[in-house]
Amino acid sequence: MRIAQIAPLAEAVPPRLYGGTERVIWWLTEALIDLGHDVTLYASGDSATSARLVPGAETGLRLAGINDHTASLLAMLDRVLDEAGRYDILHFHVDFLHFPTFRHLAGKCLTTLHGRQDLPDFLPAFRTFSEMRLVSVSDDQRGPIPEAQFAGTVHHGLPRELIPFDEKGGDDLAFIGRISPEKRPDRAIEIARRAGMRLKIAAKVDRADAAYFASEIEPLLGDPLIEFIGEIGDADKPAFLGGARALLFPIDWPEPFGLVMIEAMAAGTPVIAWNCGSTREVIEHGRSGFLIDSIDDAVAAVAAAGHLPRAGVRAAFEARFTADRMARDYVALYERLIGADKPAMFGKTLIMAD
Amino acid sequence: MRIAQIAPLAEAVPPRLYGGTERVIWWLTEALIDLGHDVTLYASGDSATSARLVPGAETGLRLAGINDHTASLLAMLDRVLDEAGRYDILHFHVDFLHFPTFRHLAGKCLTTLHGRQDLPDFLPAFRTFSEMRLVSVSDDQRGPIPEAQFAGTVHHGLPRELIPFDEKGGDDLAFIGRISPEKRPDRAIEIARRAGMRLKIAAKVDRADAAYFASEIEPLLGDPLIEFIGEIGDADKPAFLGGARALLFPIDWPEPFGLVMIEAMAAGTPVIAWNCGSTREVIEHGRSGFLIDSIDDAVAAVAAAGHLPRAGVRAAFEARFTADRMARDYVALYERLIGADKPAMFGKTLIMAD
Repeated sequence: MRIAQIAPLAEAVPPRLYGGTERVIWWLTEALIDLGHDVTLYASGDSATSARLVPGAETGLRLAGINDHTASLLAMLDRVLDEAGRYDILHFHVDFLHFPTFRHLAGKCLTTLHGRQDLPDFLPAFRTFSEMRLVSVSDDQRGPIPEAQFAGTVHHGLPRELIPFDEKGGDDLAFIGRISPEKRPDRAIEIARRAGMRLKIAAKVDRADAAYFASEIEPLLGDPLIEFIGEIGDADKPAFLGGARALLFPIDWPEPFGLVMIEAMAAGTPVIAWNCGSTREVIEHGRSGFLIDSIDDAVAAVAAAGHLPRAGVRAAFEARFTADRMARDYVALYERLIGADKPAMFGKTLIMAD
Repeated sequence: MRIAQIAPLAEAVPPRLYGGTERVIWWLTEALIDLGHDVTLYASGDSATSARLVPGAETGLRLAGINDHTASLLAMLDRVLDEAGRYDILHFHVDFLHFPTFRHLAGKCLTTLHGRQDLPDFLPAFRTFSEMRLVSVSDDQRGPIPEAQFAGTVHHGLPRELIPFDEKGGDDLAFIGRISPEKRPDRAIEIARRAGMRLKIAAKVDRADAAYFASEIEPLLGDPLIEFIGEIGDADKPAFLGGARALLFPIDWPEPFGLVMIEAMAAGTPVIAWNCGSTREVIEHGRSGFLIDSIDDAVAAVAAAGHLPRAGVRAAFEARFTADRMARDYVALYERLIGADKPAMFGKTLIMAD
């Protein structure tokens, strides 16, 4: 299949630093190529990919100091539209910005929503351009927008070898992510103290969360059980995650997916996750971790996690959360989309072709 | 002429509280109707207008708690596109979001840029959709984007009777606006102290500027010459501006227009403006105020302002900054646009018509 992947321009693909969406697009693109597909990636010019790269901007916009990405995205989408006739499938990762200009090609367009959908801001686009087919990254993500037109849910996946299985694990608990109220690092700290176990916190503090960190979290860091090690890079993740007894994921917001859960699983480290957002779709309770609703349950889960076979956690990752599985799921959706709309699509494509 | 005005959805037209763009659109719409034109206004549903109102959202989005306005705007623009055949002119005030879907109607589209253009964020849209004709609100606003396609500059105007002429004026200096580093309230305070005159500051403090206010401005407010009266509403503006000897406008950013300057002029109050951004296009040095480059010059201008005939300031307003003049300028641009592109336009319009 001739497939175009259309990425946001905030970060390169893969991102220099953070950028969950760009990492997923990178993994998906490589996995589609491994499956033999012909993939073109529309992304920032400093991206590194096995696909044909069409630069939508010189470099990732965030590090270039561009705050409003809309103009750059519209310019890139104009190029995608010019070249749309070359592709069987246009797979967008830019929310809804392409809806007005690609609605006549809806039969070969798929749009993965990467963000939370529990705010009313996007609804007018889903209502007005209802012919555009969407993909959710968890079933839970769809909850607030039942009227939106979803073609399916595709859970994220990551390359099988990215994070190696760590058979031994370690004795400490781990927390990784942003220090922000919805990630609930305070809950993680309380769980560790109540369990009497060491907790390592690998987390960045965004400027927006500086006040929260200072008032709510910093005062808790004096406890000798708690070690705040700050931000870590991708290279440090395997050791950090693999060396833990369990990852604490006590979130308090509708997390659309939660990549760190499957990163921990890849390392063989069970996840103790609040039953919230996507977690019940990712974690198999008693196999790859525990779904809990209270601090008491979490403390009990910390003890139980020591007895969970790490090989079973890794097996749960390999069965459901590899990039290869993600790519095959998307190909199945692409095929269904093209099959269902084939006559209409080819008619419309011909109009677009030069 | 059948004219569509397409407003942003952040605030109602006119706005409940702040919103310079929405106020200008309101005045323009009413003035076009006074000139006998058939005007349709696409704006939030709680707008109040003599035009036919097509609601793009139930209420202004900011007060409705919607942070990302893009989806609502795209949905409204889709309706504008459906109805485009009804109009001779489509006049947009939503930056560039309509460019991709209206480029085939460029011959009857005009877009007023209301914001600063000295950041590179918007450039890709002006380059990619270069057939879309723009209007600047000052010549200075165009400086950073010489490659953009401007049809003309139209300075803002306000209704002749909105702010009555105050023959007497007063003894104090006035500052009005936001407390923010680029508005330089610190300069205003220094000018007043050096001149030994009272200064009344009518200004709101946005959350983003709270730290600046606390560290830079609040410590200066102890001086008995300085009176900080906080935020004032539109109803209080005529008395506030009319009762001043001069308005201080010591800005330090490329202000695209600066409505408060012409509000002061309408009251007969001269403006002492830093020579920066649009100010030299608005203020006639020695007639409606003074253009200055230093605190020393500003202190001298404060003394001179007391001798400037207030009737001359009002006359400068009436000659160049009424809503009627603004509407006539826009109609001239509309006519030039339609005339220049007439054959192409009607051809393209017919394709759009049902």
